[in-house]
Amino acid sequence: MITKANRLQHVKEYYFSTKLREVRQLIAQGKPVINIGIGSPDLDPPMAVSRALQQTLEKNHIHGYQSYQGIPELRNAIAHFYQRHYNVTVHPENEILPLMGSKEGIMHISMAFLNPGDEVLIPNPGYPTYTSVTNLLGAVPVYYDLVEENNWFPDLEKLSKTNLSKVKMMWINYPHMPTGSKPTKKLFEQLIIFAKQHQVLLINDNPYSFILNDTPKSILEINGAKEVALELNSLSKTFNMAGWRVGMLLGSQEHITTVLQVKSNMDSGMFYGIQQGAIAALKSDINWFVNVNAVYKKRREIAFSIAEALHCTYDKDTAGLFVWAKLPKGKKATAVTDELLYTYNVFLAPGTVFGSNGEGYIRISLCVPEETLAQVLKRLTK
Amino acid sequence: MITKANRLQHVKEYYFSTKLREVRQLIAQGKPVINIGIGSPDLDPPMAVSRALQQTLEKNHIHGYQSYQGIPELRNAIAHFYQRHYNVTVHPENEILPLMGSKEGIMHISMAFLNPGDEVLIPNPGYPTYTSVTNLLGAVPVYYDLVEENNWFPDLEKLSKTNLSKVKMMWINYPHMPTGSKPTKKLFEQLIIFAKQHQVLLINDNPYSFILNDTPKSILEINGAKEVALELNSLSKTFNMAGWRVGMLLGSQEHITTVLQVKSNMDSGMFYGIQQGAIAALKSDINWFVNVNAVYKKRREIAFSIAEALHCTYDKDTAGLFVWAKLPKGKKATAVTDELLYTYNVFLAPGTVFGSNGEGYIRISLCVPEETLAQVLKRLTK
Repeated sequence: MITKANRLQHVKEYYFSTKLREVRQLIAQGKPVINIGIGSPDLDPPMAVSRALQQTLEKNHIHGYQSYQGIPELRNAIAHFYQRHYNVTVHPENEILPLMGSKEGIMHISMAFLNPGDEVLIPNPGYPTYTSVTNLLGAVPVYYDLVEENNWFPDLEKLSKTNLSKVKMMWINYPHMPTGSKPTKKLFEQLIIFAKQHQVLLINDNPYSFILNDTPKSILEINGAKEVALELNSLSKTFNMAGWRVGMLLGSQEHITTVLQVKSNMDSGMFYGIQQGAIAALKSDINWFVNVNAVYKKRREIAFSIAEALHCTYDKDTAGLFVWAKLPKGKKATAVTDELLYTYNVFLAPGTVFGSNGEGYIRISLCVPEETLAQVLKRLTK
Repeated sequence: MITKANRLQHVKEYYFSTKLREVRQLIAQGKPVINIGIGSPDLDPPMAVSRALQQTLEKNHIHGYQSYQGIPELRNAIAHFYQRHYNVTVHPENEILPLMGSKEGIMHISMAFLNPGDEVLIPNPGYPTYTSVTNLLGAVPVYYDLVEENNWFPDLEKLSKTNLSKVKMMWINYPHMPTGSKPTKKLFEQLIIFAKQHQVLLINDNPYSFILNDTPKSILEINGAKEVALELNSLSKTFNMAGWRVGMLLGSQEHITTVLQVKSNMDSGMFYGIQQGAIAALKSDINWFVNVNAVYKKRREIAFSIAEALHCTYDKDTAGLFVWAKLPKGKKATAVTDELLYTYNVFLAPGTVFGSNGEGYIRISLCVPEETLAQVLKRLTK
């Protein structure tokens, strides 16, 4: 066997893959495990999405290579979507890059801007892929604290006093996963000032803004944001299309062109039918959002009751696909989730999956039907 | 603007993107340019492919995240395909990794095994992406010569006498693009011996084996090949599905697991409907290959005549989507292709796109209808 690259020494197996293997084993042993740990939407996309894909299959010449930048209609649809929902103007010709999922975008952006040794500000708690991609490229993750007392916002004043000379990039993700914390305009303004002051590329990973949130916000709505900021977005959560792999990157022409240089050397354009499905989704009317959120609201009520059954406290005014619940003082996250798994056959995510500041918290997914959540509640309260 | 990563300093814009932009400009100016430069199949996939995708859209729960390793049915279909067509046994559970296109695989493999400074043996002439991915990761391309006198095979004896101490990987691509040279069992055997002797990971990029070739071969048919070799394959050319982005990697469990470690940190599983389309393609019966090749054979006859009209010589016994033609002595490849573009409004690829050993050659694509090739011939001979 040929030895693997050093960069893989830092990459651990994702907690979820290890744990989900265990869950599968338990199920194979006959345990009736209910999984409320994962954020993969179970609802269907808008009807028009599959129909649009289906219609392309009747056309000719849809099977060949597609442009790295996607078809112009897709970039136009993204531009309209940003105008309509975020009141942000992005030029469809050169300020939008469709991606095969926003996860892929994390690698593309990191390859475009990071040299080995560069430091990257990463939220703790936060999405683990920011760390693993940074490590894969030999750059250095520098975690910034998010704490409940500060609404899970970064303390930029404190951060400014640290040595930021090697920092090249900063990941933010508002509405925030796993806490559900919603951004304010002031937060975004301060982040842009911070990024300009320290010449840091600020990337807002923004897949959750339409889930349980009436006021979607984009970092690009701040004046002059494009000088230092990029935004990643995705259809996965907004339109229940996680498996379709449609993401997008938005920002200045210069930054987008740099990322395109990477992308054109490592992947190809998106399947034509998927692009047409994405266009149909982006054109959804306001009822789509209302209806999806009505489902999530009902589920969340039960998730709140589950949190209460576990003697947790929680914030009701959050966005996204999860309830983030604080355990009673002294309880350890993995101890609680393991106990739930082994005693009640219920799997949910310990907060520590997302970093040390997740200690003392658990994350309950809203991606399962009401009946399933009710069943969990029954198990915990009987 | 935030400065780009150093790795992008080595990455030039792909010759084709620059040139195709020029072609588009000429067309916009009213020039009737015919493009026979690009290898994107124009024919349709098997009928069953779109039908299979269409049928999935009627099912529920097909829109969520998919496993990084693809559904078991896809891996089974790939294993059967390899058994049936190459007489190679690969275990569907752990020796197959479906990919979103084999181009993506070049990056995945390189990230999995290359450290900065490692050397990579790359064919000259050859597919430019091997070089750009190597450069993106700070590894060092070391070109090995392929020349017509040696049937475009590497001179392994000569190569063994060079300093290979820093070489970690070697790209081969048989049937070879751009020359169409077909591999022999002896060549593959010698390559495996060479790879074992020098502890080099050998990767055969094998997308062309079913095009104008009755004897598809895999590097994995050599005894003990899996110890040092991987094979990349793709549905793009075999089933005219370039836009679908379906590739696959085959090799030992250890090597596949290492690549999966990279993949799981940078992308996600393939859309369920695309996987079902891929399965339908892989199950195609032998008539599929016969019929597609009948079309390419007719086209190739005209391409041969085009080569003759340009006073070129060529090998008739080649595989793949191109005719690789040798210009009359003293003629420069780009001088000829530019003259063809500006005088006859015909765009084709100069051999130098693929490396210095492509000087004195041109590449004619078979991915256009007979009538189009006939039109080119008419322009050149009238």
